[in-house]
This record gives sequence, C-alpha cells and structure tokens, in this order.
Amino acid sequence: MLRMSALFLRTLREDPVDAEVASHKLLVRAGYIRRAAPGIYTWLPLGLRVLAKVEAVVREEMAAIGGQEVHFPALLPREPYEATNRWTEYGPNIFRLKDRRENDYLLAPTHEEMFTLLVKDMYSSYKDLPLTLFQIQTKYRDEARPRAGLIRGREFVMKDAYSFDVDDDGLAASYEQQRKAYERIFTRLGLEYVIVAATSGAMGGSRSEEFLTPTPIGEDTFVRSPGGYTANVEAVVTPVPEAVPFEDAPAAHVEDTPDTPTIETLVALANERFARPDRPWTAADTLKNVVVALRHPDGERELLVVGLPGDREVDPKRLEAAVAPAEVEVATDEDLARRPELVKGYIGPAVLGPNAPKAADGSSTGIRYLLDPRVVPGTRWITGANEEGKHVFDLVAGRDFTADGTIEAAEVREGDPAPDGSGPLELARGIEIGHIFALGRKYAESLGLKVLDKDGKAVTVTMGSYGIGVSRVVAALAEANHDDDGLVWPAHVAPAHVHIVATGKDAAVFEEAEKLARYLDHRGVEVLYDDRPKVSPGVKFADAELLGVPVLVVVGKGLANGTVEVRHRAGGEARHVIVEHAGETVAGIVKELLAEG
Amino acid sequence: MLRMSALFLRTLREDPVDAEVASHKLLVRAGYIRRAAPGIYTWLPLGLRVLAKVEAVVREEMAAIGGQEVHFPALLPREPYEATNRWTEYGPNIFRLKDRRENDYLLAPTHEEMFTLLVKDMYSSYKDLPLTLFQIQTKYRDEARPRAGLIRGREFVMKDAYSFDVDDDGLAASYEQQRKAYERIFTRLGLEYVIVAATSGAMGGSRSEEFLTPTPIGEDTFVRSPGGYTANVEAVVTPVPEAVPFEDAPAAHVEDTPDTPTIETLVALANERFARPDRPWTAADTLKNVVVALRHPDGERELLVVGLPGDREVDPKRLEAAVAPAEVEVATDEDLARRPELVKGYIGPAVLGPNAPKAADGSSTGIRYLLDPRVVPGTRWITGANEEGKHVFDLVAGRDFTADGTIEAAEVREGDPAPDGSGPLELARGIEIGHIFALGRKYAESLGLKVLDKDGKAVTVTMGSYGIGVSRVVAALAEANHDDDGLVWPAHVAPAHVHIVATGKDAAVFEEAEKLARYLDHRGVEVLYDDRPKVSPGVKFADAELLGVPVLVVVGKGLANGTVEVRHRAGGEARHVIVEHAGETVAGIVKELLAEG
Repeated sequence: MLRMSALFLRTLREDPVDAEVASHKLLVRAGYIRRAAPGIYTWLPLGLRVLAKVEAVVREEMAAIGGQEVHFPALLPREPYEATNRWTEYGPNIFRLKDRRENDYLLAPTHEEMFTLLVKDMYSSYKDLPLTLFQIQTKYRDEARPRAGLIRGREFVMKDAYSFDVDDDGLAASYEQQRKAYERIFTRLGLEYVIVAATSGAMGGSRSEEFLTPTPIGEDTFVRSPGGYTANVEAVVTPVPEAVPFEDAPAAHVEDTPDTPTIETLVALANERFARPDRPWTAADTLKNVVVALRHPDGERELLVVGLPGDREVDPKRLEAAVAPAEVEVATDEDLARRPELVKGYIGPAVLGPNAPKAADGSSTGIRYLLDPRVVPGTRWITGANEEGKHVFDLVAGRDFTADGTIEAAEVREGDPAPDGSGPLELARGIEIGHIFALGRKYAESLGLKVLDKDGKAVTVTMGSYGIGVSRVVAALAEANHDDDGLVWPAHVAPAHVHIVATGKDAAVFEEAEKLARYLDHRGVEVLYDDRPKVSPGVKFADAELLGVPVLVVVGKGLANGTVEVRHRAGGEARHVIVEHAGETVAGIVKELLAEG
Repeated sequence: MLRMSALFLRTLREDPVDAEVASHKLLVRAGYIRRAAPGIYTWLPLGLRVLAKVEAVVREEMAAIGGQEVHFPALLPREPYEATNRWTEYGPNIFRLKDRRENDYLLAPTHEEMFTLLVKDMYSSYKDLPLTLFQIQTKYRDEARPRAGLIRGREFVMKDAYSFDVDDDGLAASYEQQRKAYERIFTRLGLEYVIVAATSGAMGGSRSEEFLTPTPIGEDTFVRSPGGYTANVEAVVTPVPEAVPFEDAPAAHVEDTPDTPTIETLVALANERFARPDRPWTAADTLKNVVVALRHPDGERELLVVGLPGDREVDPKRLEAAVAPAEVEVATDEDLARRPELVKGYIGPAVLGPNAPKAADGSSTGIRYLLDPRVVPGTRWITGANEEGKHVFDLVAGRDFTADGTIEAAEVREGDPAPDGSGPLELARGIEIGHIFALGRKYAESLGLKVLDKDGKAVTVTMGSYGIGVSRVVAALAEANHDDDGLVWPAHVAPAHVHIVATGKDAAVFEEAEKLARYLDHRGVEVLYDDRPKVSPGVKFADAELLGVPVLVVVGKGLANGTVEVRHRAGGEARHVIVEHAGETVAGIVKELLAEG
C-alpha cells in the first residue's frame, strides 16, 4: 500500500516551462518523472511503477515467442561499431568518450554489433538457430533536439530484440513472430497502433516497419489509403508517371522574367506575358531547384540541388531520410557565393549535375542534382535560366536536361495516390513506439557471423532487429489517457488500482478508510491511500484527478449515512456504496478493469 | 522451464585467459557472463536470472524499511558534482564526456548530489522527513585496474539508498535501520559477512562501515580482535603510545655509516660499530623516511615523506586511503634530482617539513613530512643525516625534530593491539559487498538542502548513503559457493531449482524426463531440463556440475528399474527414487532448500 503521507511525491499546479505536450506536462506535474538534464529524466516512485508494468508486459510477450533475455553493457568499445561503419555514420548522434587509457568508447544507441559478436562467439551450427535474444536496457542518443519529455530523450529505456536465422525464410518467420508479439504487446497495453512501412535509416536492411500510435502531437507523419496502404511519410514512394512523348514539344526558349524570384511571382508573370492557349500556367508547371547542404558523417560538406515541381515543398524529414546518414544543413549565402553559377531565385538544370559545363580536362564540375520522381522524361518545365531575371520555358526533361538520379524529398499531400494504387492518401501524425527491421546479412557480414549449414558449408547468418521504446510508451500511454484534470491510466499500467481519499477531520473517517485500504491490499489490490491528516478535500481531489489512478474511493461525509463514494477516474456517475460492502465492490471493479486490459 | 536444447548457452572447458579467481573463471565458463571490454560484462540468460534474484532480495528489504524506489539517469551533467567538488576529486576515476553542445557530463559512480537536489526540489518541511530513497541502477567507474570479473568492474549494478533526516538522532536511526536491513539481505542471500569500520574516502561523512564477505581472494584486508573490534585495515587507527620523557636522552650525534642504504645494512652496522649496552639495535629503532609523490585531483604533483619505524613497511592501501582524494605515485629519480636535499638512502627529518631550512624570506621550503603515530615525543631514533654514508643517532622526536602531522600509512600486522584495547588483531581478506555512510551535512550544505524545522527555522538536512554492489554480490556468491567441478548455487539465487538430465537414446527416458519437468514446472519449481538428444551423458553431467543448479535429477538407466536418481549438487549420496514419486520428492526437496535460505 502506498500512503500519501509518506509517498515521495509533490504534485505541481504549474506546467513545467519547457513542456509543450500533455504527457510531458502531466507526468512532471503528477510527480512521475523529473528532468535531470535536457532529454534526461529521473523516474520517481509512481513513474517507476508504471515503467515496471510496461516492462513486464514486454518481457512476457518476448518470452512467449521464445525470446531469451540477456543484458548488454551501455558503455561499449569503438571497435565493433567501427567494423560496421556506424561509429562514423552516427556522426554527432551518439555520445562518445575516452577511458583513462585514451581508448574510444560509446554509449550504445542500439546493440546490433554486440549481439552479432556474442552469437558468433557462442554458436557455430545451423542447429543452434533460429535464435531470438532480447534485453530491456538503457540506451543513449545525443539528440540534436530532445523534446516532449520521455518522447524524445537522450537517455531512455528500450527493449531491443534480435533474431538469427540461417536463411531468408527463417528471417521472414522470425520477423513475423516479432510483428505479432508487438501487436499483442500494444493491444495488452491498450495503446492504439498503426503498422506502417518505414525506412531503415542508419540500421540498414531490406524491410522495416514502424508501430505508430496516432496522436496529433506525434513527431512522425504517416499516410494511409482506403485500400490499406500505410507508410511513414518518409517511406512513401512516389508513383512514377509514364514518360511523355516529346517529339512535338517546342524548343526551349529563354524569356525575360524580371523580379520573379518566387514561384508565385513567376507564375503570375508567365500568365500575364506568356499565356498558354489551353489553360493558365500553375505552379505545377515550374521546376523549382532547391539548394541544400549535406554534412556527411566524415565531416565533409556537400551542396545538393533538389529539383521538384513548383507546387510542392521539400519535406525536411523525407529529405533527411533520403540522404541519411548524411545530415541536412541550410545552404548559406556563403555557399552560393562560392558557386557563382547558382543565381539565387533563377537556378536551372543547365548548370547542375551532368548538365554542368565540364572542366578543361573533361571532368564534371556539377553540383549533385537529384529530381523528384515525377519529373519523368518528356515533361516540360518553366525553370531558372541561371541568369538574374531570366527563366527558360519548354525545357524538356530527358531532352534538354538530365540529373544524377531521383530523390524522395517532396512533401506528400493529402489526396496523393497511394503507390500501390489503393486510393488517395490521408495524412496523420503518430509517435513511433516500435520499429522492426529485417536486417538481412549486413551485420553478420561485417562481423563475420557464419554457421555451418546442413552440408557443412559456412553460411552467413541473417538477422532481424526489433525495438520498443519502453520509456516512450509510458509517455504515449499518458498522451492517450488524460483529460484536462490529469492522467487517466488504464488499470493494468496504473501505479495503483485504487485511490482512497479520506476527507474531513473525523477520526472515524480515517479508521474506515484505513480498514478499507487494508482489506483491498490484503486482496492483492494495489492501493494508493491519501491519509494526509491536514490536507483539504479540494487538494486531495485535485491530486487524485492529476495522478490518474483508475478507481477513486472517497471516504468522508457519506459515512454518516454508512456509505462511501466510488467512481471511475475516466468518468461516469459516482456510486454510493454501503461501507460494509465497499471492499468487495471495489475489488470487483478492479478485477473487471484488469480483465478488460 | 529452460530447455538446454534451446537455451542460449555454451559452456567452456577452458578458463578465460584473463581470469584469476574462481568466480570469474566459473561464471564465464558456465555461460553466466561474457566480457565485452575490460571490466565490462554482458549478462547471459542464466547470469541475468541470478542477478534478478539478488536484486529482488535487496528490493524487498529496502521496501521493508520504508525505502521508496526511484531511478536516476546514469548520464549526468557536471554542475552538481562541481558544487560538491567531486567532479575534481574523482580525478581519472570517472568517465567524462561532452555532448554535442560541448557541455560536460559524467557517468555517475554514485548519486549523492542528484538525490540531494531532488529532495531539495520536492521537500521543504521537517514533516516530510525522515525519508529513505533507493535505486538499483547501473554505475560507472573508470577503474585503473579492473579485475576479477564482476568483482571490480567499470560498469556494474548497485543498489544505492539515501536517508534524509532533520537531526543527528534521526540520521543515527536511519543508519541503524539500513545496517539491519543489510544484515537481513546478506543473511537471506546466504553470504557470510563481517561489518568493519571503514574510511569514508571520496564520499566524506562522519561514520562509515563496510560489509565484507571473507574470502582469501578479497581485495580488502580487515582486522578483528578477540574482543570484537573489526575494521578495514585502511581504517585501523594506531594506538598512540604515551610520550617518553627525554630529559636524560643524550644529544643527537651524526655517525659515519657507509654503505647502509637499507634498514638491514644499517642495523647490522649499528650493532657492529655502535653497540647498545642493554640490547641489540633492531629495525624498530630506526626511523625510515619514505618518499612518495601525490597526484592531487587538480593535477598538481606533490612530494610527501612518510616517517615510520624501520620495522614496518608503508601499506599502499592505507597510504592511499589516508591521502585520498589524492592518488599515490612512485617518487622517481627525477623527483629526487629536483630536490637535492633528499639523499637517497640517507633521508632524515632535518631537511623535511618544519625542520627544513627556511628560504630567505622566511617561508618554508620543506617537503611535507608526516609521521607514523608511534613516533611520539621523546622517542629516540637512528635515522638519515641527509648526507651519503651518514646517519644520526639519538635523534629525539619533539626535541630534535617535528613533522607536519601524523599519517596512518604503516602496515597493520597480525598481533598488533586493537585500538580499543580488545586484544591482538588478526588479519583476513574479504570482498566489499556493502558500504554504509553517515554522510552528515556535507552534501546538503554544498547543495543547499534545508527544511523548516518545528519552529519555522531553516535547518540543513543530514544524510546517509548506503550501497550494495549487486553485481559484485553475484560474484561473491559464486566465490563462496563452488567446488573443483563448478558452481554450487544456494537454492534461492540459483538460476533454476532443479536440473534434470535425460541420458541415453531411449525415447522413454526423454518422455519420462519431460513428464517430470512439466510436473515440477507446473508446481512452480524452476526447472533446467537437459533435453539435448545427441549429447553424451558425460558432457551433460559435466555441464550440470559446472552450472551448479542445487538439485540434480538423472533420468536414465535407472528407469529400467523404475527409478530416477536425485542428488544435491552440494554433495551427499544419490537417492534412487521411484519414478512415480519423483515429482513429489523433488518438489519437497526444493521447498526445504528454499525454506533454509
């Protein structure tokens, strides 16, 4: 039993200044967590109880699919991460340090390398596989922008699991098994989820899916179609239109377009001076060339130009995903000054990538140029003529210009067609609570993990990796379960099942409340008992709303009539229950709530 | 149920090359832990189960004394540790790093500062106290010499608890409560322990005691007397003899003592050329002056001379404890060359500390000089005359020389008197498994933790801190519970209660073993079932001995007679039990073993 008189807890009436989302505000105000440094939190007693319950569900479901629990260090030597190039690829996103002997270490953001080496160290035959290992462990990422409390932290708790199979079918089965376990975990936690196609990022591998819990405050945007297509917006593949015949297209012609550095001004001028006979020009007829700078993991900085229809913006997150592990930086005036062929507002393909004038020795001087997949051969564009105040019209892709490739960097819009033809896309936001990767042989190859197959031949093992942000799930649960007054925990993850409030100064009230608390405690019901003697009923009720324990019992005035008040934190009428039956009634309510979960 | 056919385990026949102590060898060979880097280990499934059981005992006993569990980050900002000066004092013993914004962080070796700040943040009145908080958490120390596997690691699991009281009596009560909880914890774990007086080291505070588990491989040396005095050798206080009258002492006189750079040669020469009438000179008549270098936490290097009776050596660990947080380094020939007044082999008090010739401006040029407490005023010594080949005789402490103070750096010897007069000391070795500190107000003062007392006056809180090396306890248990063949776990911390070995190729054997395993599993008995089909009985038995599960059941040949073999891993006769009764019998044995613990 937790007694409020002794519980290490101070609720706050004010939101923390750095908090923007409800889960962050409420978890701090209700005394579940406390900030220790940016993106680094301390778990207070109530928060730790919730975390432990989430962990228990994850652990049970991992064990149920034969996952074996291990525990790796967080502090790891550089060498394994060097072998897979992740030491470099992670760039500034990992915490690095040196020990007293000047050896390089990192605080692990994820453990693919170590699991691979461990299995290599211990196993050698196909008979040892399949194998699934997991851990629930503290992870580190030096996030550029830690935010939203536990949602994007720098020290956090993850469940990471790894599967090891001898062949592709095995990996597919292991992946599917984890996928199903994840569905059970989030269902048991009462957390709504969507499974979406995802990019693999720094992890690598052939296939990956994210589990997102839909919420407007989510950092991730995802799409879904009526036909069932779902994907993180970063992973949406633009349907490529068919090439357009261009035999009859007029030759490209440069026109004076003074004072048209933006798409709007350009379209207006084009319609005024160079009106099309069939329809007005629109932004979709223009080819916008956006200059960005990439910072590669080795520190090198490179300019990149993205060409895309003028009616679409570059989506920073899609761009980032497309160029990872490089990071995207703003192209500065200095960058442009260094490349005088880039005329701000009038940049066109003629000076970019393969179209750029060659150097005297024939080598390319072009800035890398990547096109939106919609810019297929035969499409005709108004675009920059690389001269102040001039644009080129009827510039035909594939005839007048080419690029170094395509890039998925344009924003995805509500109503865009799903890549699989399953209808128009709808956009929504969510928090990533799980991510599963069919890694394939990337890590096993880099680190030499092979086993002997049935014929005694050494074959490279194929792997999957499967993560759940355990501490982030606590925030996601808080985000999904609160109202204006505070948290509203589902029973199976709540820090207690029943919150008993004793009100007034009458000794009989405290005696009766104590008796009820003991009765329930004895029956295995987790009780938070507000036994504070000199605290007003108003404060006690406000605290109860804020803390969010699912069942509230008020022992107070009603006692004069022989009743206590029982109600659900989630809402609904209060019931007046005869005090003699209160224990049994409340235990029954809790049992029901737990059965639902 | 754990099945050996699927368990992530590979036992090793060879000891790991870097292992010196049995617990380290066996925990690695039996597949409980695996080295990831020097002093950094991975917990494999069996090891993690033992660790979890130890944690559970610790957690229960902390809760039983009202300790509330929280969980702090391991990655912490510099500032709080700067406020208490520990950022500097820890020197190279902590891992330090910078985040991407170049802010300083550390991996916490212990959390006094953070707990102090948390309580300051949340509490403000004497009514909130006493308070006891604890966590079970991963800690970091950049040990100069990580060794013995889990015994001295660089990443390890600790339980650290902190008490907060308004006055000294409160602290005394909290300290006593923790002390008793520790006794219950180690008793429940079946770990022999001795409570010894300890030094406080970098922690500070007024009183501290260590819990040591006696073992010849322990890093700590402790003493005990017949009358019940116990102390870590570092904390032994030398009984100070009474001053000796020296009115009649002859004047000091310098003598030629060629080729006597060692105590032995000096004593021999003294007896030959300057024989005493009453008895021969002994090493105890000489005053040895040992030069060491101290490295202070701020990086400064200082020479120090320790003067002690020539029949005693400097004990490096006592010296280290005495000069902490400074570290001891060897004084090099270069150091001596820089101070030409130090004549190697002939150093005497005349050039040291307060006795050193003064500089022109009257300031001291002396090297700091500290004496063993036995060198009381009036004692007469043969010691160096600071000239090659010369010693001074009848040099009287307090008359002819003084020092900058005393130091507890001389070795403690078997038979030395206990400081409390409780008899001669006996020496033994042990592993430190717990350490409790009455910190007092050091941290609360540095960090401004005050509460209002009954009269509304702000008073500084007084604190205690209480640690158990949880991962080290696993090693200590292994060290205390093994034989030549492997580990011999006590039932309540064993990774399983029963190890069933199915031998032979007979299908009936595996059916019967499976049936028994299921029966026990169903009854809540933790079963490790060796169901490997093509492994020889010899290998299975060797593995069973190595793994150390307390009850072994062999289902094999005996089945022809309707029996299985049941025995204790710890030894004793094997019992042949009728197969129909085996489940019940084994469950009974396990129940008994668990009740003992």
